[in-house]
Amino acid sequence: MYDVAIIGTGPAGLSAALNLKLHNKSILWLGSPALSRKVGLSEAIANYPGMETLSGADLNARFTAQIAAAGLEITDRLVTNILPDDSGFSLLGGNDFYQAKTVLLAIGSAGPKALEGEEALLGRGVSYCATCDGFLYKGKTIAILCTDPQYHHEVEYLAQLAGKAYLYTPYKEEVPEGAGLERLPFPIRAIRGEGRVESVLLGDGSDRAVDGVFLLRNSVAPATLLPGLELEGPHIRTARNLSTNIPGCFAAGDCTGRPYQVAKAVGEGNIAAHSILEYLGK
Amino acid sequence: MYDVAIIGTGPAGLSAALNLKLHNKSILWLGSPALSRKVGLSEAIANYPGMETLSGADLNARFTAQIAAAGLEITDRLVTNILPDDSGFSLLGGNDFYQAKTVLLAIGSAGPKALEGEEALLGRGVSYCATCDGFLYKGKTIAILCTDPQYHHEVEYLAQLAGKAYLYTPYKEEVPEGAGLERLPFPIRAIRGEGRVESVLLGDGSDRAVDGVFLLRNSVAPATLLPGLELEGPHIRTARNLSTNIPGCFAAGDCTGRPYQVAKAVGEGNIAAHSILEYLGK
Repeated sequence: MYDVAIIGTGPAGLSAALNLKLHNKSILWLGSPALSRKVGLSEAIANYPGMETLSGADLNARFTAQIAAAGLEITDRLVTNILPDDSGFSLLGGNDFYQAKTVLLAIGSAGPKALEGEEALLGRGVSYCATCDGFLYKGKTIAILCTDPQYHHEVEYLAQLAGKAYLYTPYKEEVPEGAGLERLPFPIRAIRGEGRVESVLLGDGSDRAVDGVFLLRNSVAPATLLPGLELEGPHIRTARNLSTNIPGCFAAGDCTGRPYQVAKAVGEGNIAAHSILEYLGK
Repeated sequence: MYDVAIIGTGPAGLSAALNLKLHNKSILWLGSPALSRKVGLSEAIANYPGMETLSGADLNARFTAQIAAAGLEITDRLVTNILPDDSGFSLLGGNDFYQAKTVLLAIGSAGPKALEGEEALLGRGVSYCATCDGFLYKGKTIAILCTDPQYHHEVEYLAQLAGKAYLYTPYKEEVPEGAGLERLPFPIRAIRGEGRVESVLLGDGSDRAVDGVFLLRNSVAPATLLPGLELEGPHIRTARNLSTNIPGCFAAGDCTGRPYQVAKAVGEGNIAAHSILEYLGK
């Protein structure tokens, strides 16, 4: 049982982790060791106080050095489910279960919006984890939505297993190629099926019959991640101390709203960490 | 008429100034060019994301370099009064009047609490400005509360003018010496007088008869600075977007509440700047 589980390795998660570590709390920090892709892609950050104008990649490199110096560790898991229970929270990350007294959601810009049908068909053909569920689709037909090139190895793994894999990526980078892999020309708009996945609907109104859908994203939509979490438009609703409507669950950074900026995110991570310390002290 | 007046040159004020400058707003930035004394006195700051552990003096030096690089200018005035009017705000800084469409209060840890009698006797013997009012006390007896060694030149100026000057400082640094200057052994607790200053009450219950009281502080208590401003305990009450109860007036940093931390302050400065941009756009 950890004192706190921090979900997300962007500036908000880092700021919180630094503070909670200084206070000797036991921290489970879940997310990508590559840190924030959004920060990493920034050409120039000119408004971070104390720092000369620098690229997002350089800033991420400094964050990485600071994480090592502080003795912080990142556990490379995509958290797909969080359940409040009597003693705190249970979290599902990849195939592993974790427990923590408090949770900080620092999952980035509101996380993705859930696709139509995603929640209803989750576990019924919709999966977030190639390693966990890929083997179920050996020789079958699947659709893959991949939002970050860091998951290309999972795309390759799935393409080898499946008989046929449709792939959609929202970015321009090169994607894996393979015999059974076909790139979709339009985004996946909805997942359809009665009780189980049967097809995906594309942006042009056409559909593709599939047995399963893999959503390889950096985070899961907040409402799917933690059912009952109150939103405000696409953002997590937070009080001034960054508590959410769920006791013991806090949020910080882009997921709480604009401005989507490094300074704002580190500020909120700092506030949330101190609110968590106060909550743990009760 | 400036787009925005930023009061305070600590991390919150700097973060806001950087953002508003990037958006080409006209900025009046009022405060000490020496930046935050509180930051400057920090031995080690270990939880500012992206920055190796460093002293507060080093961080202030980086801020100073960044201010120059960004082409930002600080106007060295203590703002003592802000009045909302039809087109925005009128501000009194030293002997000068300024006007701005919006105001950001980034005045540090809640500012000082007003002394008992301070508000009632302001302009009736209570003054914040040696240069402005010192000549009124030539040959007379005054009390001086000085909270920052940067005002020692004002203490010296007042001591030369006055017949007798009682001085209290809450810090350990050396203070000016002079013929008529007597250091008070206890803090000033209250300012007394019927319609005009007559005496100061000290922490030990004794009093000293005086004609005037000079309060040389880095900021003025929020309620004195901007009458009608809603507080929450010693802090300025702010909404999630850092607006105050007074339209066009925003607040950021220590003055809005704990944690008193650089990361929190820069985060709030960033949010407040974007809220100001939105307000100006209306």
